Order: sequence, then structure tokens, then C-alpha cells
Amino acid sequence: MSSTHETTSSTSPLRVVVWNENVHETRRDPEAIRHYPDGIHSVIADGLRAHLGADAEVSTATLQEPEHGLTEERLAATDVLLWWGHIAHAQVEDEVVARVLRHVHAGMGLLVLHSGHYSKVFTRLLGTTCSLKWRGDGERELVWTIDPTHPITAGVPNPIQIPEQEMYGEQFDIPAPDELLFISSFAGGEVFRSGATWRRGRGRLFYFSPGDQAFPVYHQAEIQQVLANGVRWARPQVERVDLTADYHPKDWFVS
Amino acid sequence: MSSTHETTSSTSPLRVVVWNENVHETRRDPEAIRHYPDGIHSVIADGLRAHLGADAEVSTATLQEPEHGLTEERLAATDVLLWWGHIAHAQVEDEVVARVLRHVHAGMGLLVLHSGHYSKVFTRLLGTTCSLKWRGDGERELVWTIDPTHPITAGVPNPIQIPEQEMYGEQFDIPAPDELLFISSFAGGEVFRSGATWRRGRGRLFYFSPGDQAFPVYHQAEIQQVLANGVRWARPQVERVDLTADYHPKDWFVS
Amino acid sequence: MSSTHETTSSTSPLRVVVWNENVHETRRDPEAIRHYPDGIHSVIADGLRAHLGADAEVSTATLQEPEHGLTEERLAATDVLLWWGHIAHAQVEDEVVARVLRHVHAGMGLLVLHSGHYSKVFTRLLGTTCSLKWRGDGERELVWTIDPTHPITAGVPNPIQIPEQEMYGEQFDIPAPDELLFISSFAGGEVFRSGATWRRGRGRLFYFSPGDQAFPVYHQAEIQQVLANGVRWARPQVERVDLTADYHPKDWFVS
Amino acid sequence: MSSTHETTSSTSPLRVVVWNENVHETRRDPEAIRHYPDGIHSVIADGLRAHLGADAEVSTATLQEPEHGLTEERLAATDVLLWWGHIAHAQVEDEVVARVLRHVHAGMGLLVLHSGHYSKVFTRLLGTTCSLKWRGDGERELVWTIDPTHPITAGVPNPIQIPEQEMYGEQFDIPAPDELLFISSFAGGEVFRSGATWRRGRGRLFYFSPGDQAFPVYHQAEIQQVLANGVRWARPQVERVDLTADYHPKDWFVS
Repeated sequence: MSSTHETTSSTSPLRVVVWNENVHETRRDPEAIRHYPDGIHSVIADGLRAHLGADAEVSTATLQEPEHGLTEERLAATDVLLWWGHIAHAQVEDEVVARVLRHVHAGMGLLVLHSGHYSKVFTRLLGTTCSLKWRGDGERELVWTIDPTHPITAGVPNPIQIPEQEMYGEQFDIPAPDELLFISSFAGGEVFRSGATWRRGRGRLFYFSPGDQAFPVYHQAEIQQVLANGVRWARPQVERVDLTADYHPKDWFVS
Repeated sequence: MSSTHETTSSTSPLRVVVWNENVHETRRDPEAIRHYPDGIHSVIADGLRAHLGADAEVSTATLQEPEHGLTEERLAATDVLLWWGHIAHAQVEDEVVARVLRHVHAGMGLLVLHSGHYSKVFTRLLGTTCSLKWRGDGERELVWTIDPTHPITAGVPNPIQIPEQEMYGEQFDIPAPDELLFISSFAGGEVFRSGATWRRGRGRLFYFSPGDQAFPVYHQAEIQQVLANGVRWARPQVERVDLTADYHPKDWFVS
Repeated sequence: MSSTHETTSSTSPLRVVVWNENVHETRRDPEAIRHYPDGIHSVIADGLRAHLGADAEVSTATLQEPEHGLTEERLAATDVLLWWGHIAHAQVEDEVVARVLRHVHAGMGLLVLHSGHYSKVFTRLLGTTCSLKWRGDGERELVWTIDPTHPITAGVPNPIQIPEQEMYGEQFDIPAPDELLFISSFAGGEVFRSGATWRRGRGRLFYFSPGDQAFPVYHQAEIQQVLANGVRWARPQVERVDLTADYHPKDWFVS
Repeated sequence: MSSTHETTSSTSPLRVVVWNENVHETRRDPEAIRHYPDGIHSVIADGLRAHLGADAEVSTATLQEPEHGLTEERLAATDVLLWWGHIAHAQVEDEVVARVLRHVHAGMGLLVLHSGHYSKVFTRLLGTTCSLKWRGDGERELVWTIDPTHPITAGVPNPIQIPEQEMYGEQFDIPAPDELLFISSFAGGEVFRSGATWRRGRGRLFYFSPGDQAFPVYHQAEIQQVLANGVRWARPQVERVDLTADYHPKDWFVS
């Protein structure tokens, strides 16, 4: 009834793509290149390699590449995509966004990071504005585990302590999560649902807010551990399939 | 921090707009005009008037009107919008869709009906494909109440019996509902989550599947009761506000 | 099929009972009688009266009364019960607990407050241990609104600032709430899901953690507003009915 | 802060106990011994062995054994417990029930089957009455998959066809499931949420309704597959720990 993608097997090693708009870095914003001289994507990818080892093949893609590095072929060969964007959400082509959504619906996993909350990909999958409060003072963030039995929180210290980070505060306009995994507090007193999951189509979606171009958050091993756990959790669970609305005659299932 | 819409008060009477693509009717499909000679929207609107009385001002809008009848002014003066579409989803302009989404996010209520499951408005608010199984044989549908304490199920017989209806069957590709209110079974044995709610932004969303251009479902008083209950439930609960991401300095809240 | 309680009408005025174990007070613990010389229940009841006015008849009951003041007759005439306990949970008789649960299942509303998280009533309705972290240093609590459209958060400042309060911290062992309304942060950095709702049977359940025998939290108008909103929200929505498992012959519903 | 159970490792093989009240069988009810001459537990256990192979050590326990076969030692050495009961719920000792709950809260998995919906164990974990409609005519049940990506539905035909089964119908008084996996329809037209999961403490809970003493449902390979999937899914994910409420001094987490 539904057409099956011609994808290669989704067994080990996990095929992971870290996408970055890569704009702070290419224009050499001092605050960004201080901690991420080769791009946030490089540091995230290295962290995943360190934690996933031979279980994963991790590559990167950026806005500046043709089709933003996310061709049909590339996505069909991707088990889990990570998305980092901030100031260039509007530059992401609608056709590429639609392609990413189609692959998530068919079963590709997606991790959306920090300011990716305002990306086209995330807002279209959630269906809300994803608005929030913010302040870039570089204050302490504590990331508290809400569900200690979830695979994404396995082996993660509770709380994770981030010495300096941008504040993201509630009200965060998201649909009620399927699973609420982390809640953060900030030195200024605000709170934020900083880790949450949703299902969309056959795909799994994990949002994790810690991480910013101006602070070395992605260099922390605990943060890398959360992302590695997230990648493992978000991998396709079943064959990737395009979901369609199909006619079924009476008793089609009777054997 | 957030800008407030210049809307008139959302107090009584409730301002309700029933939107219909109105294509089966304008091209005089025999199966549609048999039961809905003046359009499905007319019958739905009359049913709401019968059940809501002086509590509501009910009007209609169709695809064929300028801006599909859904101008900025019209939506700003609408508390709850009902959406019926089937074969012309692609003809709905993206600008109008974006406008409807913005008003839902700000607090306007939305009821999506039957084949509206595949509308741009619904799929973009839910973020899934909204695919399902179907069969147009005109078989008995039983609509069972799952939550008898919810205002939308108040005064509704359990089950509602629909003598002839199109079959819609699982798997229905929707996000896990915030509230699952009705599950239907069909004579052929299929089941369907036929009534469910979600929150999106500050708006309330209710999907209700019974109702089709080929069958006189919207003439049934019990179905009209559900829709009237849904309209009352979906009305804005608080002031309509555009949600935005705003800077908040440290201690902004300290008095 | 189900037997209907012989209750009087649940229409206005709302019949509200504030229950308190009343042990800190009767044994004259200095920290408790400093702020609650006549018992925490008196202050809570007065706050409800101030905010609900003629909409409610508010009375109180305590552990020390026969059947803890919660006879069958009394509960049958109660729309919403509030529960405060701390050091005497074990002294509450199982028969009274079972009676309260039966009335919640039939439709009575229940608000569980602060250290009531460990009461028999709450743990048996949730089915979890309701364990948490705590510290009684009297530090600032900020209570943040997560859902600004919910009736329980209406008219409540965001955040509510509590100058001195006991710290309750995650992981709070509760089932995933049906609705997460408030998250608190504390000066020490911990976070807590401080306001949440669940449905049990036909009854509505609201847990709200701010409030402690040692701090004057229940004297704050904003806290009283939340409790008053909670009482209005938790009132029975439909006729109170004992739910039972009943035989239904084939076609019992066919008219 | 929390005390760790002295349990043996929860790694392979999975230690599974199938519990049966075993009353229909011991009193030789003709309808029960026709399909389950050695007890329902024997057939369920054999089905699990067939599907889990060397991954699991499956044993059984019954009401008639000392402490119902569920001693502290036995439960501490059990990864997943399956529960079948019908007419003897009241004979299960409260002490054993409390012990089972404590182990579920610490992390033991639990599968509750069919008429176990009314067991003390299930109703106390869910906190609702778990009432439903029923009819024992032996009619066709179709079990439809709602979430095809969940590990419990993996490899299961959609729908599962059960030629003859007891009807269980909505309204089923349960808390909104964390995950709704199966919905059944019956020849008579009723529907039922026949497969659902909840988390309680650190434990995972799966309810699956197909299966009755009078019909050979547990002999069907597809039903056995669901139970085997459920056992794999419900196994403890992390170390088993008793959850407690503990004092934490300020800055306890600061390194």
C-alpha cells in the first residue's frame, strides 16, 4: 500500500549527518570562532565520534553547499540528522525543508539543537511558533534529569553543570512533549524544558537546548554524551516507508 | 513583550466561521448535492445555529471568495473556525494558510472536519502526514466516547450511530493527541481515532472525522451537538497574542 | 448500568472542604504557629473565600475529627476537596482513604498541596512513590507558568515570587502529568514540576507544591489565586457516578 | 541517597515470571481446561519460550503457592512479571501486592493481561477503577496497531484476527496511556484500547487485553509475539533502586 524507500540498510554503523548553517563561523564572528574555529558542526561531529566510536559514521553538511548538502541521495542514506541554525533560518530553501520533513515522516531521526528551535524544520514538524525568552549574559545553566530511565539520560550526571550559557526561558511554545527528559534552571532564576521528544510520522525527534555559538558547551563531555544517546535513540526503528492514504476494500485483511 | 492583536472582544456571542472548499457542490457532483444542495457549509452552519442559539454568530466562507473569504480582518474577528475540504487542498493559497496558522497560534480555535485531515492547515499544525486508510462503501460507523467528562462529549449518545459513512481506518498518522475523545468502529471492522484535541500556540484544535460529502451525516443532531460542543470548547481562553522570542534582562521580573 | 450517587446538585455554590492533618499546629510547633496559629486549613479556607466569594461554600476538616471529618455524607456533599498533610500520613485510616478515592473516581475534584505528595490519597491515585529531593532552608522559589491558556494559570503573575520556601527538587516520581502547568526554580538551582493535573476516573486532580507549615506562602494572594482557580477547574463536570464493569448484550445500543 | 537493591544482574537471559491465579483451572471449569488443561500460565510461558528462546528464562507462579509464589527473593530475581487473574483478585494478599508495587517502582517490568485489569496490582498502579463493558459471546476481535514503530508492535500482523474472544468495550477507566499501541474492534461493534503502556516509578507497565480462560487466544502465535515483544520492552533499563525522599543540602551537586 505504501511505497518503500530504496534506502540502504539502517543497521550499524549508524549514518549520522551534523548540519550547521555555518554563518557565524564563515563570517568570522569573534565570539563564535573563539570556541568553534572550524565550525560548531566539527565539534559536535567529533564529540559524536568520541562517544559512538565504530557504531557510527558521522559526517557534516552546511547551508553553503549545493542543496545545503542535503540532497535526496544524502538524506536517503542518513539515519539521524542533527540541526544547528541561528541567524540564517530564512535562507534554508523550502524544497530542502520539505525533503527533510518527508524523510523524518518516513522514519529518519532528527535532533534539533539550541537556536534551531526557530528553524523551518522544527517549527513545521511541531506546528507551533517555538517562541521563548532569552538573554545572552553567559550565566550558569543546570540541566536536570526528569526521567532517569530514558536511554537519552543514561550515564548523564544529574544535574549537568554548564558554567556559561545563553538563558532560554519559559514559556516555550511547543506542543506538550511525548517525553520530557530535561528541565534547566539558570542563574537568573528562569526555567526551560531543555530536553524533550516527539514522534512525527515514523520518525523520532529530540530537541536539546544547551549549546550556543558563543559558549564552549559542545566541548563538554556530558553534553556530547546526551547527543550520542539521542542519536542512538532516534535511529529508525523500522523500515523507512512513505505514509500515504490508501483505498482498502472491505475484508482486505481477511486471510 | 508580545504584541496584542487589535481584535474585538472574544466574549459572547461567539463569532464562528464555517469554511468549505465548496467544490463538490459548485460542480454539482450528484452524491454531494443530494444531501448538501446549498453546500456542506450551510448545513453545518445551520446545525451550529440550532445548538448554540444566541450564544453564537455563525457565518460561512468558501474557497471561491477573494482570499478564500479569510482576510486578515475576517480572521481577527473570528473566535472559532471550522474547516471542511477534500479535493482542492492544493488550491488553498499558502498565504491564507499562513494567516490561519498565525491566528490559531495567537488563540483562535479551529475545528477540522473529516477529509480536512489532508488540508494544508491541519498537516502544518500537526506536523505529520495525517495519512489513513479509507473506503467509500457507505457502511455503519459507531462513534464511541472515550472521555465522558470532557465538555465536547457532553450530552452526546454513546455510541453515536451513523447508518452510512465513509470508512476511515488506522493507522492514522497524527501526533499523540492531547486528549482522545472518540474512537470509531466500522461495519468492516476497522477502527479510527475519530475525535481528538491538540494545543498549538495559544489555540485549541479539535479534529472530528464523521461527515462526508456523500452521506447525510451533518444532518444528524448528535453530530451537530459534537460540533457545537467543540466550538464552545475551542473558543479563545485568554487574550489573543502573537507569540515572539524576546530578550529579557536579568531580574526583569523582580518587583 | 452504573449506579448514581445520591448527591445534591453540584451547581453553585461550589462546596469546598479544606482538609488538614493539623498536627504541627495542635502540638504547637513554633515554626507552624508563627504563620498559621489557627491552622493552615484556616488560612487556605480564608484565601479561597476571598477569591471565590459567593461562588463557594468553604469549610474545613481535620485528622482529629471522627472519621477525620470525612464521612460518607460529608464527601457526598463535597465538590472539591483540598488535602494538606505532612507528618501524619500514616495515621489516616485506610477506610477513609478508600472513601476519598471512591469519590474522586465518581467525579469529586481533589487538590493536593505541598507535602501532601506523600499522602496515601495522592500516592494511591498516582500509583507512584511521589518521592523528591528537599531542603528546608527558606530560599526563594520562582513559580513559572508553562501553559498560560489554562484556567488554573489565569490572572496569575508569571513568575510568582515566593521569598522563602522549602526546596522541592526533581526527580519527582510522578506519572507524566496530563497537563504541566507550573515549573519552579529555587535559589539553590533545583527545579520542580510544581503544578500539574491528572484525571482519575471521572475526577480531576491538581497538585500544587508551594506552601509549607514553616513559611507564610498561603498568605500570598497569588498563591490563593492559583488555589481558587484550581477549585473552579476541578469541580465535577458531569453527574457523579460509580464506575463499574457491566455486562452488555450484543446490540444493546441499537435503537 | 537511595538504597540499591541486592539484585543479580538484569542482563541476559531475561528472568521472566508468569503469574496466574490458577483458579478456573484448579477447580476444573470445563471452559478453561478445554484450552488450558495445565493452566493459562503454562501456555503463556511456553509461548514466551518459543519466541524469546535463549534470551529468557521463563518460570511460573500461582496464587496457591506460599506467598503466591512471589517472595521477596523471587521478585528481586525477576526482570519482568506477567499477571493473569480473574475471579480471585480479592484473595491476593495485600502484603504481596505491596511487594510487587515496590519492585515495579524500583524498576521491574510488568505485563498485565486481560481480566487482570481488575487486579489489585493494576488498579493500584494506575489509580483508577479500570472498569469496562464486557460480553462473553466468543465473537471476532480485530486488534489494530496504532503505533507501527513501537518495539511492542514489531513483526505483528495488522490487524491481528482473533476468531473468538470475550468482548471488552469502552469506556475503559484508565489514565491516559503514555503510549497507545493497539485498539480492538469486536464483531458487535464495540471498541477497546487493548494495548497501552505507562511508566510507574522506574518500572514499565504494559496492558494487553486479548486472552481469556474460555478461548484459545494464548495459543495464537501473533499474540505470543506481542507478549514476547512486551517482555523485551519492559525489562529494567537501569539499575533497580528504591526511590526515596531525601534531604539535599545547598550546593550538594557542585563539584
